[in-house]
Amino acid sequence: MAVKVALNCLRVLCIQSHVVHGYVGNKIAVFPLQVLGIEVDYINSVQFSNHTGYAFVKGQVLDAASMKDLYLGLKANGLNKYTHVLTGYLGSPSSLEAVADIVSDLKKENSNIKYYCDPVLGDNGKLYVPPELVQIYQEKILPLSDVILPNQFEAEILSGIRITDEKSALNCINYLHKKYQIPTVIITSTNVTLSPVMYGYGSRLKNPMKNNHNNSSDLLNQTNGSVTNNTSKYDRVRFKIPHFDYHFIGTGDLFAALTLAHLETKIENENGQQIPKYSFKDAFQSVLSTIQTVLSKTLKISEGESLNLSESARIELKIIQSLDDIRNPILGDYVEEM
Amino acid sequence: MAVKVALNCLRVLCIQSHVVHGYVGNKIAVFPLQVLGIEVDYINSVQFSNHTGYAFVKGQVLDAASMKDLYLGLKANGLNKYTHVLTGYLGSPSSLEAVADIVSDLKKENSNIKYYCDPVLGDNGKLYVPPELVQIYQEKILPLSDVILPNQFEAEILSGIRITDEKSALNCINYLHKKYQIPTVIITSTNVTLSPVMYGYGSRLKNPMKNNHNNSSDLLNQTNGSVTNNTSKYDRVRFKIPHFDYHFIGTGDLFAALTLAHLETKIENENGQQIPKYSFKDAFQSVLSTIQTVLSKTLKISEGESLNLSESARIELKIIQSLDDIRNPILGDYVEEM
Repeated sequence: MAVKVALNCLRVLCIQSHVVHGYVGNKIAVFPLQVLGIEVDYINSVQFSNHTGYAFVKGQVLDAASMKDLYLGLKANGLNKYTHVLTGYLGSPSSLEAVADIVSDLKKENSNIKYYCDPVLGDNGKLYVPPELVQIYQEKILPLSDVILPNQFEAEILSGIRITDEKSALNCINYLHKKYQIPTVIITSTNVTLSPVMYGYGSRLKNPMKNNHNNSSDLLNQTNGSVTNNTSKYDRVRFKIPHFDYHFIGTGDLFAALTLAHLETKIENENGQQIPKYSFKDAFQSVLSTIQTVLSKTLKISEGESLNLSESARIELKIIQSLDDIRNPILGDYVEEM
Repeated sequence: MAVKVALNCLRVLCIQSHVVHGYVGNKIAVFPLQVLGIEVDYINSVQFSNHTGYAFVKGQVLDAASMKDLYLGLKANGLNKYTHVLTGYLGSPSSLEAVADIVSDLKKENSNIKYYCDPVLGDNGKLYVPPELVQIYQEKILPLSDVILPNQFEAEILSGIRITDEKSALNCINYLHKKYQIPTVIITSTNVTLSPVMYGYGSRLKNPMKNNHNNSSDLLNQTNGSVTNNTSKYDRVRFKIPHFDYHFIGTGDLFAALTLAHLETKIENENGQQIPKYSFKDAFQSVLSTIQTVLSKTLKISEGESLNLSESARIELKIIQSLDDIRNPILGDYVEEM
């Protein structure tokens, strides 16, 4: 079968942090997207010297008015023609509300645009944003989202459902699907067992209504959230994520960017139709394989780094050295259908 | 001969503009450097919606104090370990002076660091920066520079020498070598003939004193600036640049980034020594071949772009689509030794 990747079909607006040194936020999301042939316009919500895992951080935050101003500049020139929006860490209520305004405006212009939201709130039981952001996510951001990628803690806070095992994880996913009418919910990792493998879950509504997920009758009709009843409505996968004894920074941002790239990239089939390049399962197989390779490569290269550097500096993800692994990951066995 | 590219030997600090949409400044410099395996930390001197070739521009300028603050954050964490600095457009006297302070500090920490300066002042007879920047370049920036990459207009303004033919171009180069003790002077293009080919010139002092170009006796002893007397002291090349009937934006920024990458990348020879990957001539052969391919590809892809877009939008350089051309340019015949 002759297939080819459709050139130039994805145009992403990415709103995240910029750090001068190291890899988080836009600094880790943009390069893989570009390497995979995706045009990325990116607004830097902050410009910091480095991420907050270092002893010192200096830099500036983009205020909400300035963020909107950048968007208005794009719009005035007719440049706001995006197929996707991706957002990550946004540290202040006003900037999160500015994002809601921007995404709303983009959806008015193009009802097919898809919004990938990584609702960055905290991890391992701790919030690292102001608590009022939770409500803004619930009231303004999640209802606009087509795909969300919380970690366990974020999924719990947004849903109010505690995750203690697989059943409660799936209940939490069902709640997020229904309450906010989000077609795709991905809990990127959970940490509820003592095993050295962490589990994550992806759940995508089969055949959502075209154009506007808010009108999806599939979602509105689900009044019973039990797992078994809904199984047939969803593509569902379980990720098995090997655990490393290092606190890598930026893996969540990388996960979100790669997920967008792999779930959204289309190829042309023999009839000239644009079809998804990967199945739901195979998309995550590529995402997790790439991430595992980046982490292994990071540890390998870090052995040669100067010991004068802090651990944070030594284990900054070796993303540019992984260019070929991003394009052609060596596939491992990280994902199973449920 | 078994050769390999040395991994991770180049760490560049790049200080230029950021635009959300399109490709100038850091937006066009960073991707090719990363694709060529070079670690880039980058400070965005502005964040604009797009470049100034569009009808509207919105955005923010990083003030000098904030720029220094970012550098101090890097320094406080011991992250300011760079092999090279690259600067491009800097719009205000205070930010240009901040760059001088940052480069001076980096040179105190590491006397081997090389500063690539593209002294962006204007083009085709017109300044597009405040006129007081010329003096700051002359007094503070050029004396710190190891490699400069002015266009014809910038070379004329910085030297006071009018370029009307090849002889005056080389006299201008000799003046810049001597007056500011700059080991490598590259005039990226001149427009002094009616021919459809533009000429550019690269000139590099052979065997500059190690560590500090300010102590180079080769340079200090040159009191006679005539072309023939100095020829043997320099590697000199002439570029033949095909002319396109389009006003591409960002080509100068791309030229500077690729020049740094190709002149500075080292390989290991069979004795385990690090040697330059390319000769002076071959480095520019790669630079110009890549740029010509990017421009051709840009025009080809732009034919398929929506006619609702402005020409500025349609001919934004197709840099991410040129990934393989950046890694492995198909070499044309653009450079000759002089």
